[in-house]
Parts: sequence; C-alpha cells; structure tokens
Amino acid sequence: MNWESLITERAKHMVPSVAAEIIRLSSGHDVISFGGGMPDPALYPAIELQEMLARVLTQETAQSLTYAPVGGFDGLRQLLAQRASAEGAPTLAENVLIVNGAYQGISVVAEVLLSPGDIVIVEEPTFSGALEIFAKHQSRVVGVPTDEQGIRTDMLEEQLARTGAKLIYLMPNKHNPLGIDMSLERRRALLGLCSQFGVPVLTDDPYGALRYFGEPPVPLRALEGSEAVIAVSTFSKTIAPGIRLGWLEAPKAIVERLTLAKKDSDRSANNPMQRAVYHMIRDGAFDRHLANLVENYRQKLDYTLTALQDLLPDGIVWTKPSGGFFVWLTLPEGIDAQEVLERSVERGVVFTAGAHFFPAKNRRNNIRLAFSQTPTERIREGVQRLAAALGEVM
Amino acid sequence: MNWESLITERAKHMVPSVAAEIIRLSSGHDVISFGGGMPDPALYPAIELQEMLARVLTQETAQSLTYAPVGGFDGLRQLLAQRASAEGAPTLAENVLIVNGAYQGISVVAEVLLSPGDIVIVEEPTFSGALEIFAKHQSRVVGVPTDEQGIRTDMLEEQLARTGAKLIYLMPNKHNPLGIDMSLERRRALLGLCSQFGVPVLTDDPYGALRYFGEPPVPLRALEGSEAVIAVSTFSKTIAPGIRLGWLEAPKAIVERLTLAKKDSDRSANNPMQRAVYHMIRDGAFDRHLANLVENYRQKLDYTLTALQDLLPDGIVWTKPSGGFFVWLTLPEGIDAQEVLERSVERGVVFTAGAHFFPAKNRRNNIRLAFSQTPTERIREGVQRLAAALGEVM
Repeated sequence: MNWESLITERAKHMVPSVAAEIIRLSSGHDVISFGGGMPDPALYPAIELQEMLARVLTQETAQSLTYAPVGGFDGLRQLLAQRASAEGAPTLAENVLIVNGAYQGISVVAEVLLSPGDIVIVEEPTFSGALEIFAKHQSRVVGVPTDEQGIRTDMLEEQLARTGAKLIYLMPNKHNPLGIDMSLERRRALLGLCSQFGVPVLTDDPYGALRYFGEPPVPLRALEGSEAVIAVSTFSKTIAPGIRLGWLEAPKAIVERLTLAKKDSDRSANNPMQRAVYHMIRDGAFDRHLANLVENYRQKLDYTLTALQDLLPDGIVWTKPSGGFFVWLTLPEGIDAQEVLERSVERGVVFTAGAHFFPAKNRRNNIRLAFSQTPTERIREGVQRLAAALGEVM
Repeated sequence: MNWESLITERAKHMVPSVAAEIIRLSSGHDVISFGGGMPDPALYPAIELQEMLARVLTQETAQSLTYAPVGGFDGLRQLLAQRASAEGAPTLAENVLIVNGAYQGISVVAEVLLSPGDIVIVEEPTFSGALEIFAKHQSRVVGVPTDEQGIRTDMLEEQLARTGAKLIYLMPNKHNPLGIDMSLERRRALLGLCSQFGVPVLTDDPYGALRYFGEPPVPLRALEGSEAVIAVSTFSKTIAPGIRLGWLEAPKAIVERLTLAKKDSDRSANNPMQRAVYHMIRDGAFDRHLANLVENYRQKLDYTLTALQDLLPDGIVWTKPSGGFFVWLTLPEGIDAQEVLERSVERGVVFTAGAHFFPAKNRRNNIRLAFSQTPTERIREGVQRLAAALGEVM
C-alpha cells in the first residue's frame, strides 16, 4: 500500500501533552498534585446537570435530540449575549457562536484566519494547548514578554512592526499560567495597536468567571476599537471539561465565517448539553454554582499563597492571582524547574515545569502551581514537599 | 481594518444545505414531509438516555465530567470493537476512534488524507453532506454510476486508472439516497481495485443497523484486502443526531493518525454522552431500541412501497430498499424533479430533488423520499399528493 505516505506530516509538529505527563507522574500513591489545570472533581455540578438534562430530554425531546443549529441553540446564544452585554460589551445572539470548548474555538479561528507560515504573537508565558493548535496550522509563533500588568505592549508594538503578524493570542483575565489580569491601560494600548496594524486579537478566557478578589477587569470587547477582538470562552472550568461546551463572541461578519468552519468540522455542538446549560444559567443554578466555586477556590488560593509565604526558601517570587487556577513561581536564574520536578516527584508532589508555556521552551526557571484540584487540607503539605525539593536543588 | 481579507475563501465552495431548504418548505401547515433524512422524533430513546445519563453523572461523576481520552471512552471503543468483530470484521478497541458523528468522521479523514486538488471518487448519487466536506477540502469529486448492486466497479476501474484518485467514498449499506446494499461481488471487486491502485476507501454507514428485510451484507472490513478500508458510522440515526456521537473503524496506524486530527479539532468527544451510550449498549437497551426502530421503520417502508405501487403514474421506477430511511425514484427522462417539487409544495408534500446527490447537480429526474419521519398514517396521503403533482408535470 502506498497510500499511507499520503498522510499529512502535520501531526509531527505537535507538542507533547502536558496533561499526559502529569497524569503519569500522579499515578503513584500519596502524590499531591499541583499539575493539570483541572476543576476540583468534588465541585462538579453533577446534580444540576442531571436535573437539567432530565428536563431537556423529557420536556424538549424532539427539539433537543435533533441537530442543533450550526451556530448553536439560540436560547443559549441569547443568554450568553445578555451576560456579555451586562458586563459592558454590547452583544447580540448573532455575535455568539457555540463551540465544543475553547480548544475548538481557537481551532476554528486558526482555520479561518491563518495560512501556513503566518506569524502569531502570543504572551510569554502562554497556554500550551494554544501553542499546539498554532503549530498544527503551521504558524510561526513569536512570544512577547509579560509583566504584572500583562503583555508588554511596548514590545508588542515592536514585534507587530517587525513581523507582520496575522493574529495576537492573549489571555487577558486570570491568565494561564500567570493567574493575573491585564491592566486597563494595557488593554487600551493593545486595541490601539490592533487598529494601527490591522491585526485581530483572539482572547481566551476560561477562568475570568472564577474571580476571588477585586473588581472584574473591563472586557476588551467593551472598549473602543474592539471590532478587532474575537473572544473565546468555555464552560470547561466553570461546569466541566467533559461536556465540551464553549463559545466565541465577535462581530457578526466574523461569527458567520467562524460558523462555517464549525459546520465543516462537525456540523453543530451537542444539543441536549447546550440546552441543559441554558437551563442552568436561566434558572440561576449556574450563578449559584459559580458562587460556590469561588468560595472554595478562593480558600485554596489563600492556603496556597499563605503556605508559599511561610515555607518557600528566599529568592523565589510568585504572582498574586485574583482568580483562576494558577500561581506562577519564578526561581532564581540558573535553577531548572525540571530538576526541581524530578526531586518533587520523589517527595510526592507534582507541578508543571514552566518551559511548557514558552514557545521556544527556553525558560527553565518557572513553576506553574495549579491549586484547583488539590484537596484544601493537603495544600500546605504539598507546598512543604515542594519547598524541600527546592531546598535541595537551590 | 484589512484583516477580514485574510479570511479563507473556502466557505464559498459550500453547497447550500438541503436540510435548510426542506425545513423552509415544511414550515407551512398540513405539509407531509418526505424531506430530511431524519429519525422519527417519536422514536427517540429519551427515557433510556435520561436514565443512563443519570447513572453516569451520579455513579461516575469525576470520570465522566473530566476530558474523555482523545480516542474516546475506552469502554465504548471496546464495545464497538466487539460488535464489529461479531459481524465478521476482527476489531480491537485500538481500531476504533470516537468522533462527533459521521460528519466529523468524514472531515478528519479528508483532513488527513486529502490535499487541495486531490480527486475523490464518489457514487452517483451520493450523500450531499460528504460533497460539502470534500468541496471544503478543495477536492475534485468524480462520480461513478451505480446500479442495483451498488457502484459500477467496471467504471470505477476506468476512473481509478484515468484520474489517480486519492480516496473512494462509498455507502455500502442502506445507501443514501438509494436505500440499497452493495452486492458481495462488487465488494470483492472494490477491494481488489483498492489494492491494485493503492487507494483507500472510506465507507459511510449511518443506516446499516436499520435492516428491515434480508440478511446483513458482509462488512467490507471482513473481506480480504480490507486494510484499505476506513469505516465511519454514527448513532445519529439509531439514537439521535443531537447527541453528536459516531465512530471510525480502521487499521491501528490509521486510527492513530485520525486521532491526532480529532484532537486538533476539539480535543475529545462529549464524555457523559459516550458513557451513556456505552451503558445503553452494554445493558441491552440499545439493541431493544434498535428492534423497536426496525419494527416501526419497516412498517413505514412497507406503506411507502405499497402506496408508490398503487398510486404512482406509469413510467416511474424506484429502488426496493432492505433498510435505511430512503426510496429513490427515477422519473422519465426530461421530467424535472425540481418542477415536481414546486407542484408538490402547493399540494402539501415535500421531498428532496435528486440533483442534490450528484456532484455536478446535472441529473434532474430523480426524487429522494425519506419515509423515516413521516407519520405512518400519513404516508399514503403524502404519496397521493406526490402522484397528483407528478400527474400534472408528466
């Protein structure tokens, strides 16, 4: 057979999955995991989902079991548009596209906007899954450094001028892996640059609803110049990743093009699940669940930050997240997080080495701690073990 | 903004949706629809799905609400492999990939196997949705005629020799729109040609489990030379399209490549739905449901064929399906099915004009009747109205 040779070479570009490594590492007993950025399984709204699915399947049987419209169940699109509008970004149902999680959202945007060889600008560090998707589309990824206000827009401007980038990919809220929000000043500067250089920005916001402290940042889509913004979000962290449900918000003309790409991929999203989530939101169950998540995760973050402060050796700094799942540690220059990870595994604690979140994998001295799925009462012990491993390496 | 011009032109290749037209036409009152190839909503297994989803969400909460493995929930892959093996095609879980319906199955195969400009051979007529997917991948589609045994393998051989095709796409069982099975002789001839020309065949089989008469045809994957076969199927017709769940069967090396394409698209399929269907199959609820579907649809097919025999004018011939959702009518040469459709709409009956199922849309004298969702007691009245419209045009 000669036809196997026809198969595209693209798959070879794929970055090894971070999650797979973590799961492998976590399989031993008595391991405390700060690894994958996953919700706490104890907090899944299984009862609410079950109740809403029962309602949908018995009371909306024919409507829920046929194909959903390609763009999504209209009731859900409307609710999401109302919520975005209430946050300050005027949005209609026609500005919303339902997708199978943020991953498919990023994927359809890449499909529609990028050609092989195009340059995509990302934050350093950034979400490793997005790097996989851009690699699959044979994009060249250029990283721009961040500080405590988010992406360095002065350096972004230089790169836009130099590279002719076709897309900027950012996580403005509760960043993965940094845990921080982009400042209002930087948001305005970003949109000015998008307009100046005629380049769209894809924002990815899985964690924004998980806000434990402070005021919500102003959505990019609420600011002047936001016609360049495509915002993707997901229910993976607020409800559950297994239901594969997310959405995009963008100007109508863009949504229409992205909708065709979604149709080309798999026709439409799971219909009963869309309707179950619609009912969860409409009945207030979703917001009650969010409040419960915030209360639980705020405590985990608090325990994590306290333990880091109490236990870590001098010379290490970390971000002060206002929400999300992550704290980002910077070790002294020359300390290799991969080496710390190996010592940590021996001591029964795992995390994700920071190099995964850099396009060139060239930064070795960062650690991402995901506190989301760590049992609250084990956080301090986990940080203690990490501190011991750090003490050995440093 | 200059960036909208970056958007790919691919969407323009898309064929207008047949379904959309039918839904539009069917929106008037007292319309009898033989239009879309949809299940009878009255036969959806809503109670069984609800029961199994409740079981999954309460008893497998953490496992079902996290990401499923990219290739699919292993229990479901194993059950599907066992069922394929029982039908004569030795299959392991590693030969199965779970996808979001046959549409995504065809889409990932096209993604992996086809480059722009490649030739795909299809049956004339064929599934219009597949034509949309191949158009999106900028394939050139070449049709090969069918007869009552399926694709004309003598003419297929000529086209393989002439075109250097990269893929053959076929519906060997309960064909859409023909309703018939490919004969064993043709199946063997097809696999011989695949081997001779080194070209893979993608078989699409949404309807094969809906068998009302006769013995099941021998699966292509059970015959010699089947290493060239990628078989896609779906639960869209046997359970419900809204759940977006289907699967592929293929040699392991191919499944691994297709799995990467599935991951690139949306990471993994809906986890609770995969597990609910797994329990439906394992507990026998799926087979009991299938038996109920077969009994109901068999009666609908019987009513349809009897009414056609009794009521249609001379000069029209039609297929004699052993299963599936469709009967395919051939009108006398020179009679335009679109004109018949317009007269039919006035009389309160709709169907799909056959031209949609030809790559070049150049055959005008066919009608596809989908009897699946027509209420049994209205079938004869629907055929009566069609006969009157035909009488006017002929």
